[in-house]
Amino acid sequence: MRNLITDVPGVRVGSAEDAGVGSGVTVALFEAPAVGAIATPGGAPALRDGALLAPEMTVQRVDAFVLSGGSAYGLDAPGGAMAFLAERGRGFAVGPARVPITPGAALFDLTHGGDKGWGRRTPYADLAYAAAERAGPDFALGTAGAGYGAWSCDLKGGLGSASAVTSGGFHVGALVAVNSAGRVTRGSSPHFWAASYERNGEFGGLGEGPGAPDAFDLRLSGDLPANTTLAVVATDADFDKARLTRIAIMASGGFALAIRPAFGPTDGDIVFAAATGRAAREPGPRDLTEIGALAAECLARAIARGVFSATTLALAPQRPSWRERWGTS
Amino acid sequence: MRNLITDVPGVRVGSAEDAGVGSGVTVALFEAPAVGAIATPGGAPALRDGALLAPEMTVQRVDAFVLSGGSAYGLDAPGGAMAFLAERGRGFAVGPARVPITPGAALFDLTHGGDKGWGRRTPYADLAYAAAERAGPDFALGTAGAGYGAWSCDLKGGLGSASAVTSGGFHVGALVAVNSAGRVTRGSSPHFWAASYERNGEFGGLGEGPGAPDAFDLRLSGDLPANTTLAVVATDADFDKARLTRIAIMASGGFALAIRPAFGPTDGDIVFAAATGRAAREPGPRDLTEIGALAAECLARAIARGVFSATTLALAPQRPSWRERWGTS
Repeated sequence: MRNLITDVPGVRVGSAEDAGVGSGVTVALFEAPAVGAIATPGGAPALRDGALLAPEMTVQRVDAFVLSGGSAYGLDAPGGAMAFLAERGRGFAVGPARVPITPGAALFDLTHGGDKGWGRRTPYADLAYAAAERAGPDFALGTAGAGYGAWSCDLKGGLGSASAVTSGGFHVGALVAVNSAGRVTRGSSPHFWAASYERNGEFGGLGEGPGAPDAFDLRLSGDLPANTTLAVVATDADFDKARLTRIAIMASGGFALAIRPAFGPTDGDIVFAAATGRAAREPGPRDLTEIGALAAECLARAIARGVFSATTLALAPQRPSWRERWGTS
Repeated sequence: MRNLITDVPGVRVGSAEDAGVGSGVTVALFEAPAVGAIATPGGAPALRDGALLAPEMTVQRVDAFVLSGGSAYGLDAPGGAMAFLAERGRGFAVGPARVPITPGAALFDLTHGGDKGWGRRTPYADLAYAAAERAGPDFALGTAGAGYGAWSCDLKGGLGSASAVTSGGFHVGALVAVNSAGRVTRGSSPHFWAASYERNGEFGGLGEGPGAPDAFDLRLSGDLPANTTLAVVATDADFDKARLTRIAIMASGGFALAIRPAFGPTDGDIVFAAATGRAAREPGPRDLTEIGALAAECLARAIARGVFSATTLALAPQRPSWRERWGTS
């Protein structure tokens, strides 16, 4: 177990960054088309080809989910993943044509340092193509991929992931790019809101802490819709779109467990969900509930890990990383 | 400050119970029609006249929200609140007619003891009428109103409430009837999941605890859609339906903070939101975010208070109350 979303059989992840631009892309690529679903609890989403994920829409399966920096410009990224997949014969068959299904979402890092003067053609499609080429079982957390330019309130944000296995043997994992308006720490303390859910010291093992005096002060990165935390959760259970939508909604609780506040008007919080169906048996009602519960907790843990793993970028303006502020190693 | 939703100017609450039936109703009555909104994150909702709460629907304001036991039978309850309001000349004017707007939701307590053999006419409309008559600034928590027959997994459920004031002076409050499939305590320990958000020992002041060995075991009341936690959040800010829907969604995070798991397939979790507009000034973007954050935390605190305040019913079958199991007073 890597404690990554790639512990879910059938899921690969790759990232690519442009240091000059100060932004990047992360692609969750499914070895075979996976059932897809979505929850959109945030107030400022930037989403491409997400409408087809509703249970009543015709297409059932996705080839990849794409997380990107660049705000709405970053919605060019899924095009690069489509090109990569099309070259390999992947995609929804429409007669002789193939249309890779690669819903994507973007977070706001336009003012987080780096040169965003890309002119008529953004770098995001090429970044997504490169990320798809690198997709595999291992990938970097922290200042990487879609989390490269991310900030989390007054700290550097980043890319996080975590996994778990249910009592019935189903795999669950989460991938997240944390660019939140709210704080993932309890005020100005190093203690994470998600501390109750930490496993094996995966984000420092500091526990809930003594309670910071400013834990409940409202500290936001700003009042503009200039944030967004983007997540993918995956399981190897064989769910249809309707049950997987329940998983996406349950998983969205992970935002509330890890970020204060969650679901705000300036965050475009989105959860993509994928079911690879690689598990040996059919999931029952209790499996559904347990997978949803663990999806929420994997997402909360992944959010904390994303910030915990980040390193400060040598760009201006910039935010200090959790490690720069509190780390000892 | 009562630490009740009635700390929000313009909000009154009343409850009524039928001990023989083992069920009850709670009405949140607005002194003047309040802007209304909703979030429905649960998988098994029982809802009446909730469709009109969507931002694009014509009616803007509600006269009351009604929480009821009785599963879908309990959706008779809003009719009793309508009768009470119609007698007093309240309601949406349609020419000479008046239609009180009283959206309602119900929780499942049909198998929680008591005589549910009511024949052709359920008791819920009369209970709602009686609850509306009693509506005022004070009301009982615990085994009362819509929480009278409620269970919370392996404990007695109940009616909870809490309030807060934002840094800008806006009032926020939550009312909840806790009948959750999941646990509000950390496994078999007395410590509440919502402990990080507790104020002034309002649910025992026990803190987060040392961590129960079974905290992360999936303990549910069952696999049937036979639960539901119902909430009302209110503020005195003057929001339109769209911004108030953002508040309802943000508030729903309180389920995740207080119940494990939240948003499951067997819970009909619903948040009604009301804006009374009695505050002296207009809310800005930051006020919106802070009100939403506090709405989530008030809801989490109210959930813990509802279970903490409950007493065991002398009905069979029954669940022991938190106080019976762990209380000293």
